[in-house]
Amino acid sequence: MSDRASLKKIRIILVEPAGALNVGSAARILKNMGLQQLVLVNPQCDPASEDARRMAVHGADVLAAAQQVQSLPEALQGCQRAVATTARDRHLPTALEPPQTVLPWLLESNGPSALIFGSEERGLSNQELNYAQRFLGIPASSEYPSLNLAQAVAVCAYELFQLAQTSLPSATPPTADEAPLDQLEAYYQHLETLLSKIGYLHPHTAAARMQKFRRLFNRAGLSDGEVAMLRGILRQVEWAIAARE
Amino acid sequence: MSDRASLKKIRIILVEPAGALNVGSAARILKNMGLQQLVLVNPQCDPASEDARRMAVHGADVLAAAQQVQSLPEALQGCQRAVATTARDRHLPTALEPPQTVLPWLLESNGPSALIFGSEERGLSNQELNYAQRFLGIPASSEYPSLNLAQAVAVCAYELFQLAQTSLPSATPPTADEAPLDQLEAYYQHLETLLSKIGYLHPHTAAARMQKFRRLFNRAGLSDGEVAMLRGILRQVEWAIAARE
Repeated sequence: MSDRASLKKIRIILVEPAGALNVGSAARILKNMGLQQLVLVNPQCDPASEDARRMAVHGADVLAAAQQVQSLPEALQGCQRAVATTARDRHLPTALEPPQTVLPWLLESNGPSALIFGSEERGLSNQELNYAQRFLGIPASSEYPSLNLAQAVAVCAYELFQLAQTSLPSATPPTADEAPLDQLEAYYQHLETLLSKIGYLHPHTAAARMQKFRRLFNRAGLSDGEVAMLRGILRQVEWAIAARE
Repeated sequence: MSDRASLKKIRIILVEPAGALNVGSAARILKNMGLQQLVLVNPQCDPASEDARRMAVHGADVLAAAQQVQSLPEALQGCQRAVATTARDRHLPTALEPPQTVLPWLLESNGPSALIFGSEERGLSNQELNYAQRFLGIPASSEYPSLNLAQAVAVCAYELFQLAQTSLPSATPPTADEAPLDQLEAYYQHLETLLSKIGYLHPHTAAARMQKFRRLFNRAGLSDGEVAMLRGILRQVEWAIAARE
């Protein structure tokens, strides 16, 4: 079940936005749709500029309160669930889902959750997509499916607001023990370090291989108990190696 | 039943848009969502400007093909159905309807239909609202319900595209004999002329009174036979008056 309060837990993350007009427009539509949290990852424009403030109008408070961070993991800190938006189906582990299917899952999260938008020119990189558990594509004409950044934010914010008005029967009820993204991330870091140490990962292929692991585990929707278990394995392996040295 | 072809019959009308960026953004989202017809009523900015073209990107063809007219009636010429968007419930004859309720009615029109947006600063005037049969309000936070023009166009274009993908059972099936707006307009003009002539309308109250008539008849959804009948009455009255003179 979702409600208006659930909107306030959602972070709208813009990765390296290049246009101040877009950032300002995004702030306005967030305010229009009862959303409050705007996070800018390494913005390539000035969110305090005249252009941004002119477009934000009465969303100026959302714009002024926008958090600026240097990396996507930093933006996701403390989040339970993350959805990435993309226009292209680039070998994603799961199919692109339309807003109505995937956004209820964000609203129903126990903790904070995130909706991630890529930059105007390049969208989200494969590495950035790896941080998300599910992927949203806005249905559009095959002739020209790429929406302007602020327009994409508008469509998603509008759908979030719509969904928050209605109590939806959930296909994926939140489990009390769902692992937060920070725990997952710590596990991936731990795994990568160990796999490199034991010579499984090589510098030139580590990124691609880790991507496959991340996607596999993200798709599985791990509980915190499961993450603890997986990390237990890693520690056990580390102990076994140390004992032999 | 609606389909993608029905999108092409829909005119998106912007009344006196002041921002070239908004006009360009609107062209882009129209192209994104399979819409083709952009009509600008007395634009207060240059749709051919660098700002507009920069925002349109690959929607440049929709922007270049945008029709420019001097008045809303001109923009509506040939239309069967018209919906006006407004954020405010200004003594409208019928309640504001959300996109999902009213947009199928546009898609199911036999002939061309129109979705009308007001200018950034003042929206649509009462007189302009009179040209529409139904009224659309985008659900939004009561704290700040006024969307940027291009964002409002984005939400509606997205909903039109969504609705065109699905065949909806229609609550208001198109009737073969639904009166086109031109016929309705001609009737209103005829009525006003006659009512002024017989002293029913006075210069200082004519506009307000005619507004009530327009809304009443618009709400009724007249057939062309009914419009012919109503005009028959007017002609009969004119004849009766002439006979007495």
